[in-house]
Amino acid sequence: MFVREKVIKAILDSGENFMSGEQLSKKLGISRTAVWKHINALREEGYNIESVNKKGYRLAEKPDDILSSENIAYNLPTEFIGKKVIHLDTVGSTNDYAKEIGNKVSGGTLIISEQQTKGKGRLGRVWKSKSGDGIWMSLIIKPKIEPYKAPFLTLVAGASVVKALSNLGVEASIKWPNDIIVHNKKICGILTELSAEMERVNYVVIGIGINIKTIDFPDEIKEKATSLYKEGYKLSRVDIVRQFCIEFEKLYKGYILDGNKQDTLELCRKYSAIIGKQVYVIKNNKRELVKCIDINENGNLIVKEKNGEIQEIMSGEVSIRGVKGYV
Amino acid sequence: MFVREKVIKAILDSGENFMSGEQLSKKLGISRTAVWKHINALREEGYNIESVNKKGYRLAEKPDDILSSENIAYNLPTEFIGKKVIHLDTVGSTNDYAKEIGNKVSGGTLIISEQQTKGKGRLGRVWKSKSGDGIWMSLIIKPKIEPYKAPFLTLVAGASVVKALSNLGVEASIKWPNDIIVHNKKICGILTELSAEMERVNYVVIGIGINIKTIDFPDEIKEKATSLYKEGYKLSRVDIVRQFCIEFEKLYKGYILDGNKQDTLELCRKYSAIIGKQVYVIKNNKRELVKCIDINENGNLIVKEKNGEIQEIMSGEVSIRGVKGYV
Repeated sequence: MFVREKVIKAILDSGENFMSGEQLSKKLGISRTAVWKHINALREEGYNIESVNKKGYRLAEKPDDILSSENIAYNLPTEFIGKKVIHLDTVGSTNDYAKEIGNKVSGGTLIISEQQTKGKGRLGRVWKSKSGDGIWMSLIIKPKIEPYKAPFLTLVAGASVVKALSNLGVEASIKWPNDIIVHNKKICGILTELSAEMERVNYVVIGIGINIKTIDFPDEIKEKATSLYKEGYKLSRVDIVRQFCIEFEKLYKGYILDGNKQDTLELCRKYSAIIGKQVYVIKNNKRELVKCIDINENGNLIVKEKNGEIQEIMSGEVSIRGVKGYV
Repeated sequence: MFVREKVIKAILDSGENFMSGEQLSKKLGISRTAVWKHINALREEGYNIESVNKKGYRLAEKPDDILSSENIAYNLPTEFIGKKVIHLDTVGSTNDYAKEIGNKVSGGTLIISEQQTKGKGRLGRVWKSKSGDGIWMSLIIKPKIEPYKAPFLTLVAGASVVKALSNLGVEASIKWPNDIIVHNKKICGILTELSAEMERVNYVVIGIGINIKTIDFPDEIKEKATSLYKEGYKLSRVDIVRQFCIEFEKLYKGYILDGNKQDTLELCRKYSAIIGKQVYVIKNNKRELVKCIDINENGNLIVKEKNGEIQEIMSGEVSIRGVKGYV
C-alpha cells in the first residue's frame, strides 16, 4: 500500500473522530510535513478533509464518488479483483491502456478513467465517455485457460454488472450477450479483448462502460441509451465498482477454478431482457423475427424461428433488435 | 517505396551493367549528392556496391544474405505478404515488437531482426537467437475471422515453412503441430499470438525462428536442435524468407477467403514427421505410447492408443516426444 493510501485509510478508519497530525505521523512513520503534503494531495483528488486547530483531520463527508484506489480497495472483501486500481483523469481508451500494461501487471488490476477521448464499443464503434459522467473501466485478468474458453468471460462480466446493480436496488437486465438495460434502454456496454498464444491466454481485458450521470445523449442514440441518474437512481460510483468486483470474483473463480458455468448462466437467465420474448436477429443484413427460448451451456442463445425450427445463435454472428414494446 | 529502396531496385534492375550517378539522379528525381548518400547508407547496411570512375555503380555480388526490405520485397510475387519489411539489428522479441505495432501497420508486414535478446518459444520458453545466426521474424496478419478460427493459422505457417524449404531443396518435415524438423532435429519453431475481441480478430502475429548458421547449441538442446548449415544446407536467408512469403500467401488466402483447409492439411500430412509412426504423448505428466494415424479437418492429431482406441488430440493439450530411432 502506498503512503497516500495509508493516510486515507487511517482517516477513514477513525470515522467521525479527528486524527491529529502527530497521531498520523506516528502511526505511519512519516514526518508531520509529509502528512500535511499527503492531506493536501488528497484534497486535490477531491477528498473533503476537515482540519480543526488542535484536533486534527477528519473526513467531512463520505468520499463516495471518487474512484480512487484508496476508496475502491478499502476493506474490499475480494482476494485479487479490484485490489489494485489505476485511476486516471483522462485516457484514450481504458481497454487500450490495459492492453499496453497487460503483460506487466497482476491479474485483477482495474483501470478507471474519469474520461475517455477515444472510448470504443464492440466492433470498433464509438463509445461516448465524458468526464465524470460514468464509470469507464477495464479489468485485467490472467486466467490459465485456453483461448476458446475466454468468450464465456463476457457473460461472467455481464452477470456481475447486473447482479452488482441489483444489489444496489437497480432493476437492470441483460440483453444477450452483453448489453445491460434499465427501463428498456442501454445503460452499460461490455467490450472484452483477448491476448493469447494459440494454447493459452496471456490476459483478458474486460472493458465496462456504465452511464451514471449523463443527461443529454447524442440524437442518434437518444432513444436507445440512458443513465442511472436519468432513470432515477442516485448511486455512488464507488459502491457500484466495489459490488462489481465482489460479484465478478465469485463467478470468475467458480468458472476458472471449478469450471462452474451454472452460476453465471443462472444469472444470465434470471436477469435476461429477452428470454421468452420476440426479437429480431439480424444476420448478413437480413432480419428475422424469432422467439428467445434459453441461453445454453456454451453461452449461446437458443431461439425458435417462425417455422418452429430451433436455432443456436453464437455471439457476434448476429445483431439483436428488440420488437417495439418489448426490448 | 522509400527512396533508398528505389536506389537499390534501380541497381538490382541494371544487373551487371553500371548505372552512373547521373542516370540514378535522373531516374529517381533526386540530386547526385542524395544518390551518393543513399549508396553509402546501403554499403553500411552490407550491400557490396562497386563504383568505377566514369562508369558508375553496380552490385559486386548478389546481396543474398541481407534481410533488408529492399531485398525481400524486390519483385516479390505476392499481393501483400512481405511487401513491407521492418528490418532491425536487435530487439527483445520480434513477436513483442509486432504486438506493439500490430494495430498500426497493414496486414502482411514482416518484422525481421538480426538478433533477439529475449526470444521466446511456446509457453514462455526461451528461444536462442544470436545475431545473424538465423531468421528471427514475425509476420503480422489481419484476417477478418472469429478468434476460434485463428489456431489453424499455425498449421498454415508450418506448412508454408516446410514447403518453402522443400522448394529450396531441403528435406524438412513437420512435427505436429508446429515444429519443423531436419534429419530428426528441430530447425524451426513457430509461436502464434492473437489479439482479438470476442467476436473478431484484431491481428495475429506469427513468430518464426529458423536456425541457419548456428553450430554450437547449448548442452540442454544439443541433441534435439540443429541448423541448416549443420545439416549441410548453404542457403540464402533472403531466398528462404521470400519462398515463405509466397507459400504462406497462397495457403493463407485459400483459408481466409475460401475456407480452404485442404491445401494446408495436405502439406501437413505429406510432410508429417509423425504420421504412421509411434510417439509418446505426454499429458498431465503421464506419458503414453500411441501411433499417429492422421491430422483431421480441425487440425487435430488422430492417434491410436495401445488398446486400439482412437483419440483426437488438440494442440496444447499434450507434448509429443518421438520414440528413439523415429522422431
